[in-house]
Amino acid sequence: MAKTGPGPLSDIVVIDLTRVLAGPFCTLLLSDLGARVIKVENPEGGDDSRHYGPFINGKSGYFISQNRGKESIALDLKSADDLGILHRLLSRADVIIENFRPGTMQRLGLDWDSLHRKYPKLIYASTSGFGQTGPYATRAAYDIIAQAMGGIMSVTGHEGGPPTRVGSSIGDLGAGLFTALGILTAMHHRAKTGDGMMIDVAMLDSQVALLENSIARYFASGKPPKPLGARHPSIAPFEPYQTKDSYVVIACGNDELFTKLCRTLGCPAVAQDARFATNAARSEHVVLLKAELEDLLLHHPTQHWLDLLLPAGIPCAPINDVEQAVHDPQVQARNMVLPVDDPSVAPLMVAGMPIKMSAYPDAERRPAAPALDGDRARILADFP
Amino acid sequence: MAKTGPGPLSDIVVIDLTRVLAGPFCTLLLSDLGARVIKVENPEGGDDSRHYGPFINGKSGYFISQNRGKESIALDLKSADDLGILHRLLSRADVIIENFRPGTMQRLGLDWDSLHRKYPKLIYASTSGFGQTGPYATRAAYDIIAQAMGGIMSVTGHEGGPPTRVGSSIGDLGAGLFTALGILTAMHHRAKTGDGMMIDVAMLDSQVALLENSIARYFASGKPPKPLGARHPSIAPFEPYQTKDSYVVIACGNDELFTKLCRTLGCPAVAQDARFATNAARSEHVVLLKAELEDLLLHHPTQHWLDLLLPAGIPCAPINDVEQAVHDPQVQARNMVLPVDDPSVAPLMVAGMPIKMSAYPDAERRPAAPALDGDRARILADFP
Repeated sequence: MAKTGPGPLSDIVVIDLTRVLAGPFCTLLLSDLGARVIKVENPEGGDDSRHYGPFINGKSGYFISQNRGKESIALDLKSADDLGILHRLLSRADVIIENFRPGTMQRLGLDWDSLHRKYPKLIYASTSGFGQTGPYATRAAYDIIAQAMGGIMSVTGHEGGPPTRVGSSIGDLGAGLFTALGILTAMHHRAKTGDGMMIDVAMLDSQVALLENSIARYFASGKPPKPLGARHPSIAPFEPYQTKDSYVVIACGNDELFTKLCRTLGCPAVAQDARFATNAARSEHVVLLKAELEDLLLHHPTQHWLDLLLPAGIPCAPINDVEQAVHDPQVQARNMVLPVDDPSVAPLMVAGMPIKMSAYPDAERRPAAPALDGDRARILADFP
Repeated sequence: MAKTGPGPLSDIVVIDLTRVLAGPFCTLLLSDLGARVIKVENPEGGDDSRHYGPFINGKSGYFISQNRGKESIALDLKSADDLGILHRLLSRADVIIENFRPGTMQRLGLDWDSLHRKYPKLIYASTSGFGQTGPYATRAAYDIIAQAMGGIMSVTGHEGGPPTRVGSSIGDLGAGLFTALGILTAMHHRAKTGDGMMIDVAMLDSQVALLENSIARYFASGKPPKPLGARHPSIAPFEPYQTKDSYVVIACGNDELFTKLCRTLGCPAVAQDARFATNAARSEHVVLLKAELEDLLLHHPTQHWLDLLLPAGIPCAPINDVEQAVHDPQVQARNMVLPVDDPSVAPLMVAGMPIKMSAYPDAERRPAAPALDGDRARILADFP
C-alpha cells in the first residue's frame, strides 16, 4: 500500500503488534502522519477486528477504517523462524507497539528490557487496559470496562435513567491518542539523547485524564457529580432546546452573548430578568431559563432559528446524526471524510486526519487496508 | 512555578495565548511532559476560566485543573509595549499556540505568515471550533456545538430519549489532544528540516475523527446509527446488567470468553443455546441474552459477581462514580489523581498524566496554578 504523500513521519518505521482498536487507532494516526506502519498479524485470521461488522463485500468496514494505509505480514510469534523475521524488522525499526495483556511480551522474549539491550534506539509503546503496573495490571479490559471504571459513564446520560456509554469507544480512542503522543514525545527524547524509551499507557488512566471538571467538582463539594443530560455544569445557556421539529443547541459563555441572544430572539426582557442577569444566576435557574426559551423556540423549526442566530454570531447548532455530520459542508471542506483506494468497498468512506499542516498537503483520499499477509514479499525484501 | 522534574520536553518553551479548555488542555499535556509553558493572559481578569466554578477558597478548581504548572504573564496585545514583550518571548520560543477565532491573530500582526518570516523555527499551533478554512471558519463554538454537529451526540444516549452530551467536554479535550500530537509532529519535522510549521486543528474535525465505527456503519447500511444506550453495536455481551443493588458491566469479545462466563455463572446451558452460540447470534438476540443473564445476576449484589467473575478472567467492572474512580486502588497506584502544591485549595486533587515513561519518574504531585501575571518578573528576566 503506497503512501499518498510524504508526511512528517515518513522517516519512521513502526512495527505494530496491536489488535482491535486502541493500538490500531494509535498507529492509524502515525500512518496518516506519514509513518510506515507494518502490522504483524497472527497467521490464523489476523487482527480480530477483520471479523467485526459492518461488512461490505465480505470485508470488514471496522477493520478498514482503522487499518487503511498500513502494511501486513503474518507471523507466528511462537515459531522461532517467524520470531527471527520479527527481529529483522526490529533491527531497522523506530517504534514497536503492542497491546497484549502484561506478561505476553515477556513470554515471547520481547519485553522492554530485552529489546532495549538489543536495539537501544527502539521506542517501545505499550497500550493496555490497566497499564503495566498496579493491582489490576493483568486484568483484561474492553472499552466499556474502562468507561465504566473511569467514571465517565457516571456523568453521561440522564439522572435516574439507565447507564449510558459514550457512543464511540472513547476508552480505546483516548488511550490510542495518548499513546501516539507518548511515541512522538519519545522521538523527541531520542533525538536529544540517542536513546529509546518505553511508553506505558492504560485505557483506565486515559479515561481519568479525560474526566475534566468532574474531578474538581467532586473535590470541591465532596459529592460525586451526577449525569447532566445534555447540559453544562456551570455555563447557561449551554444545552439543546426543543424547537417545532427537533432541537437547537445554544451556548452562551458570557453575559454579553446572552443579551445578544435575547435581543435576536425578540425577548430582550428575559435578559433583564434578575434571575437570568448573570451566568451564575442563569445556572441557578437553568430549568426556568429552558422553559422561557422553549416557549419561543417551539414556534419554529430548527433551521429557522439557525438562520436567525448564526448571522447574529450566537453559537448554535443542530444535533447532526452521522449521515448529516459526514455530509456537512464544513466537514467536507476540511477533508474529514475520505474515500479509500479499494473499489470493492466503494460506498465506504473513512475519517480523515484532524491535524492540518502548513508544510504538507492534506490528503483527499487514503490507501486501502492490507489483506492479511498481503505485503510479505515487499517487507521481506526491504528488511533483508 | 518550578517544575517537579525534568521531563522529555524540558528544552521546549511554549507561549500560550489560549483560554478556557481546548488550548489549555493541550498545553497542560506539554507542561506535564516537561515543557515550560508561559500563559499570556489579558490583564482584565485573565483566562475566562479563572471565573468558572467550582471555587475553593475563592480559587477556580476548573482553572487550577487545567493550568497547574504553567507560568503567567498579563499582556494587553493591543498595546505596542506589551506586543513588544510578546515578541521578546517569541524570539526564544519553540511553540506559540492560540485559540482565538480565525482573523484575530491577523489583526494583531501575529498571523502564521508574519511570524514564520520573523521566526522561521517557531511552531504555530491553532485550535479553534471549525478550523482556519471552510465555510464555518469564523463561527464561534463551544464544546457542545462540536459534539452536536460532529455526530457523537446522535449515538450517545438512549433511542427515543432526550439528547445526551458526553459528560466530559470531549469536544474540547479531543481537539487539545490532537493539537498536542500535531505540535510534537511539527517538532519532529523541525528536527529534520530546521523549519517550523503551522498546525490547524478544529474541534469539529476532531469529533469526526473520534466517531469510530459509526462512520463505517453509516456507509455500509446507508442509515445513520442510532444511540445504543450502553451497548456495543457488534459485540455481545458488552453492556451493564442489573444486579441486586446496581449494575455489573460484562464484556466478552469472543465465544470462548462467553462459554467461560456461562460456566462461571453456573448456567452452561445458555452457552449451548443456538441463539447464543456465536457472537453474531448473540448480537442478534442481545435483548433476550440480557434477560437471561439478568435472571441470574439480579439475585446478588454487584460485588458478589465481581468476586466470582474477576478470578475467572471474565472482563467485568462496576460502574464507578467519580468518587469511586478517583479512590480506585489502580487509579491511585498509577498516580492518576494527584495533589497540587497549593495549600489554600487543600482538598483539591487533579488528574495525572497517562503517559508513563521509562526514562522519567512519574510525578506524584503537581505544581500550583499561577496567579494572574504571577511570573512576570522571572519571565522578563529570562527573556531580556
